[in-house]
Amino acid sequence: GADNDLYINQAIVFIEDAIQYRSINHRVDSKSLWLYRWYYSRTCQWVLSLTITIILALVFIEKPSSLTITSDVRYRLTAWNPPCGLTESIELLCFLVFMVDVSVKSYLIGWEEFWKNKWLVAYILTLIVSLTDWIVSLSFFCTEAVRIRRILRPFFLLQNSSMMKKTLKSINSTLPEMASVLLLLAVHLSLFTMFAMLLFARTKDGQQDKEWVGYFRNLPDSLTSLLVLLTTANNPDVMIPAYSKNRAYSIFFILFTVLGNLFLMNLLTAIIYNQFRGYLLKSVQSSLFRRRLGIRAAFEVLSSTKETPANTQQSYVSVGALLRVLQKVEMDSCCKQAIVRSLRTCSCDQLSAAQFQKLFEELDKDAIKQHPPSPEYQSHFMQKMQIAFGHPYFGYLGNVVALANIVSICVVLVMDADKQPSERDDFFLGAINFVFILYYVLEMLLKILAMGLKRYLSYASNTFDGLLTVILLVLEIATFAVYGFPHPGWRPEFTGLLSLWDMVRLVNMLIVFRFLRIIPNMKFMALVVTTLLDLVKNLRAFAGILVVVFYTFALTGVMLFKGAVVPLGNISNNNNEKVPYKSILQVVVLYFKEKCDLMALFRHLQAEVIYFLLYLLCINLICRWAKIYFVAWWLISSVIWVNLFVALLLENFIHKWDRRCHREHLSDIEYQRTVELMFRDVLEEPTEEELMEKLHQHPHLQLCR
Amino acid sequence: GADNDLYINQAIVFIEDAIQYRSINHRVDSKSLWLYRWYYSRTCQWVLSLTITIILALVFIEKPSSLTITSDVRYRLTAWNPPCGLTESIELLCFLVFMVDVSVKSYLIGWEEFWKNKWLVAYILTLIVSLTDWIVSLSFFCTEAVRIRRILRPFFLLQNSSMMKKTLKSINSTLPEMASVLLLLAVHLSLFTMFAMLLFARTKDGQQDKEWVGYFRNLPDSLTSLLVLLTTANNPDVMIPAYSKNRAYSIFFILFTVLGNLFLMNLLTAIIYNQFRGYLLKSVQSSLFRRRLGIRAAFEVLSSTKETPANTQQSYVSVGALLRVLQKVEMDSCCKQAIVRSLRTCSCDQLSAAQFQKLFEELDKDAIKQHPPSPEYQSHFMQKMQIAFGHPYFGYLGNVVALANIVSICVVLVMDADKQPSERDDFFLGAINFVFILYYVLEMLLKILAMGLKRYLSYASNTFDGLLTVILLVLEIATFAVYGFPHPGWRPEFTGLLSLWDMVRLVNMLIVFRFLRIIPNMKFMALVVTTLLDLVKNLRAFAGILVVVFYTFALTGVMLFKGAVVPLGNISNNNNEKVPYKSILQVVVLYFKEKCDLMALFRHLQAEVIYFLLYLLCINLICRWAKIYFVAWWLISSVIWVNLFVALLLENFIHKWDRRCHREHLSDIEYQRTVELMFRDVLEEPTEEELMEKLHQHPHLQLCR
Repeated sequence: GADNDLYINQAIVFIEDAIQYRSINHRVDSKSLWLYRWYYSRTCQWVLSLTITIILALVFIEKPSSLTITSDVRYRLTAWNPPCGLTESIELLCFLVFMVDVSVKSYLIGWEEFWKNKWLVAYILTLIVSLTDWIVSLSFFCTEAVRIRRILRPFFLLQNSSMMKKTLKSINSTLPEMASVLLLLAVHLSLFTMFAMLLFARTKDGQQDKEWVGYFRNLPDSLTSLLVLLTTANNPDVMIPAYSKNRAYSIFFILFTVLGNLFLMNLLTAIIYNQFRGYLLKSVQSSLFRRRLGIRAAFEVLSSTKETPANTQQSYVSVGALLRVLQKVEMDSCCKQAIVRSLRTCSCDQLSAAQFQKLFEELDKDAIKQHPPSPEYQSHFMQKMQIAFGHPYFGYLGNVVALANIVSICVVLVMDADKQPSERDDFFLGAINFVFILYYVLEMLLKILAMGLKRYLSYASNTFDGLLTVILLVLEIATFAVYGFPHPGWRPEFTGLLSLWDMVRLVNMLIVFRFLRIIPNMKFMALVVTTLLDLVKNLRAFAGILVVVFYTFALTGVMLFKGAVVPLGNISNNNNEKVPYKSILQVVVLYFKEKCDLMALFRHLQAEVIYFLLYLLCINLICRWAKIYFVAWWLISSVIWVNLFVALLLENFIHKWDRRCHREHLSDIEYQRTVELMFRDVLEEPTEEELMEKLHQHPHLQLCR
Repeated sequence: GADNDLYINQAIVFIEDAIQYRSINHRVDSKSLWLYRWYYSRTCQWVLSLTITIILALVFIEKPSSLTITSDVRYRLTAWNPPCGLTESIELLCFLVFMVDVSVKSYLIGWEEFWKNKWLVAYILTLIVSLTDWIVSLSFFCTEAVRIRRILRPFFLLQNSSMMKKTLKSINSTLPEMASVLLLLAVHLSLFTMFAMLLFARTKDGQQDKEWVGYFRNLPDSLTSLLVLLTTANNPDVMIPAYSKNRAYSIFFILFTVLGNLFLMNLLTAIIYNQFRGYLLKSVQSSLFRRRLGIRAAFEVLSSTKETPANTQQSYVSVGALLRVLQKVEMDSCCKQAIVRSLRTCSCDQLSAAQFQKLFEELDKDAIKQHPPSPEYQSHFMQKMQIAFGHPYFGYLGNVVALANIVSICVVLVMDADKQPSERDDFFLGAINFVFILYYVLEMLLKILAMGLKRYLSYASNTFDGLLTVILLVLEIATFAVYGFPHPGWRPEFTGLLSLWDMVRLVNMLIVFRFLRIIPNMKFMALVVTTLLDLVKNLRAFAGILVVVFYTFALTGVMLFKGAVVPLGNISNNNNEKVPYKSILQVVVLYFKEKCDLMALFRHLQAEVIYFLLYLLCINLICRWAKIYFVAWWLISSVIWVNLFVALLLENFIHKWDRRCHREHLSDIEYQRTVELMFRDVLEEPTEEELMEKLHQHPHLQLCR
């Protein structure tokens, strides 16, 4: 009846929750379930992601942006300036999507839960503030000075990812200890600053106090000098005047650097690593709990259908009901087939909770990649060919040839290094590349012959290799079609899209890139590369948070320092002698010409650049704000984020390394590794009691028992 | 009889070996034992250390040294040039000491063992080479070009410390994996170099290829540019010409930096940390084994004395024999007393092996520091005083006052920052410092009154505090004696050793330094500081190896680049436009003026300086050697050593942190922590069989059974 249909639908949704590691605390009546499945359907989620991308990308075409091909203000064209109302209407559309999103989300978790969920409340507040700002903006015809809603935009990215929210919580719990070290750093800095001011005081002999003039003139100067010394950006400069007066002064600087840079900075790494050691494990553990809980919830609702006989002792689920559920569940088809298969082989008609749980363990299993078999040839000759070209040694030969190609390119580059472009002869490079590319095509064809196309493509390294070979072949054919075959003095005029020289360069770059196919053949390299790939997976949440921070910082910078940086001419006249590094200064000025360049901030984690930006802004008398802004930027991007990165890398790598030692023998099988699988040996299964307790706390589901 | 005396002597030496964690594999006849105790006596070891220090320090006065107060070549006096034969005769004396050392050592371990010991063989070879070089040197009247023996000197330091030898072995075992990462780094570098050369090739339009001219002109240039980019020293510079042409070029640089600097460099940290995780534990474990082995050997030889009744089943040691041994053993008197005490309370007359071992566990125990009791006063008033001033709050008040003093100094410094020295009035600072110092003296006296002198001094923080207070008082009295009491306009003429301003500055510096007394009152700070102190203890071996490496590098540098660097004038005329950072260049030139300055290399781990030294040397056409030299220097000092340091810090800190969580309640008791104690919970006791097997392998000791 209707009840049974409801239970079936609930079970479907719970199993889907389990597969996606989602929380099951949502409404479970029929309509809500339909809405829930619709909301988490691929299309809906894709639309939401697209909206977030669009609203974040708007900044590149909005007014203070200067995104042009060249960053050099002397050559660049003025960036396209969208008319007032264009970006604003796109924004409005995005806001509408977000409003639908937030209302669906709040409805689904129920109004009572809504007020407990701070993220949702913040979401609504952000939307309200953004809309108000939008209205203000339109009523000023886009000429308003400050746009708060732009700084709020990254919030939409943040709230949409549960991984990022989790990571943020983790970072949050590390903050107290980080704050302790930063406090220590501040104490260290201030004590040394006082010491420095006393040590390098102004003397009566005006010639002798270069140190005082340059770096320790007053308290803010001294603090800045030593703060920058902490990043070692001004390392020899700040020490030299004192050192050349008396070598013993260097003790002060050495002590400061060793204590601050070696000890305290690395202590920060140690603390963050210590805090994050359990982070991955904990997050995987809670994912596992969600999965088990979803499966258990599905079991409980299925066991209350009328198809099952009333049994007071233990609840059972009929196989038929489960099969009906499985038909409608959206999941990986391989996995579904495996579950249905084992359900069919199972002789029983009823499933207990344990059996039910066990069925779905298929979800956790390593999906061991089966390579398709090689074709079987009848002809004796073909079989011999197959053995010869399917052998690993043929692959090694290919690597050696690729290396030879690289070496030959290198030799030509070295020989041609100092030649004028007009003296250059492309014949030699063209000819050898032609020969090598022929060999690559031959190698590819022979391998496909030996392994069959399907088996060939099932190896990632072969796909990479084959794709590049095909591109190289196409390029080479295009080159010959346009410029004819290579001959001595092959230097034809420019024709078509690219000049011959550009074509040859492109081919060479692709050949260098193709050389990366050796990676799987070198054991240690393969380990490192897989670690890095794993790391990239685990780092997505961190990268997201980094984007949020970068975005906010960049926009704040644009707002704060709009018009603060003047072109080079003005500065060099006034403060010529004070400018320490001319070249970098020019760089900075090119970047910041008349408004702050958004991309510049994205690119520079380096303390050194920050130091000079700071210096430049100080000339323009908005020193204090700029200092605070850049010190905050340095702390977050350079100190904290890099340390988080090192901590995660250590965690990943050490875990991987231990595993490698344990199961050396399994290294041939290609696993599709996920974080969940990496930790499987150490994960704890949640107990029956924990699961049932959590189920009974469900705000919308009323279990019969 | 004589046998008994021999056994007693053997037991004494074995117990001393156990205390000092020395190996027991040495000769055990009477004369050798006497020689052994003489060799390991404090005087002998002290003479040896002094000799090593002297021979290492010789370099500061030897010919190419330039150790003067100022490092500025324009002002400095010519360094004292010792006459030929002076340093050489000191050297000969040192060599004589080393020859005695090596012969005693080889005799003591026996000739058979000698050939197995590579360190001793290398020691003898080094001595032979050094002496030959010495003879050559004298026969040329000290004008020879190359002195090999100077580069060999650090070996004497290395071979004298067993910790350093052990650490070197550890580092050695990490080398293969480090080499893998370095190989990866080299592949990364070379592929990107080829890519860069293809990407930033010379174009026909001469104006456009700034990138090519500046950084990628030929293969060595490109390699250098990217190698330096790996250290981020030339980070914005190298990117800018390309970036200002087309923003997309920055992808290349970002990719290179992220892969090379973030991933591969940190991977090196991870690998070294992973290798060193067990290092401390393993070294402590082997120390424990040596201790147990020494004790067991003492038991075995004592059990063969005639005093003990023949017992075929189990061997025993008489208490009397042990007491006789203990009398002669050199060890910590506290520990000795504790052992004798527990021996007296033990009712038995004979000790089994287990009992014997247990007696000496006193050696491993935490020496819990007992503070002497406070004096007991009769008078009611005095008792109240004692409660008031012995209370922690009185200490906190002292901290607050010290902080107030610091703040007041800071305020005066800020106010006086821009005043001319002639306008400055020392009255205000003089007056407040006088008041504060009076308070400090009062605080010290009251504390001594409340706690008694002995208890006061038993706290390290009080000793530090009291010492500084006394120095401050003396300084203040001296100031007043010379310059009179402070009054408005207190600016008397220079009298005595220091001017009034210098005196005031010195007092202020000491006050800032005294502020460190707050450390024990802040929990997290105390933890960090104790971790750092532990680290310094554990780092001694690393520091030794670092000194060896620095010394060798510095001397090699002096030899290689003698006369290679010319004064500033010459360069600035020729290559003025090419020099990117003028200021640093000046620094380098000041350092290296006509010969390489030894101290300069000691001080600069920073990649940036190395880059400019390199640049400078390249101008002088000895580029290739210099490049190899500095890249090696950067790899060893900046990459490997810093990573080793981070690994050790992580190890120490994480261990400590875990311990802190376990025994929060014990934090009041001051432990005299050593590495041994830190790991006691996880150490494994060696088994009886292991000990006996090792004893039976002893080359000189023939056990009866």
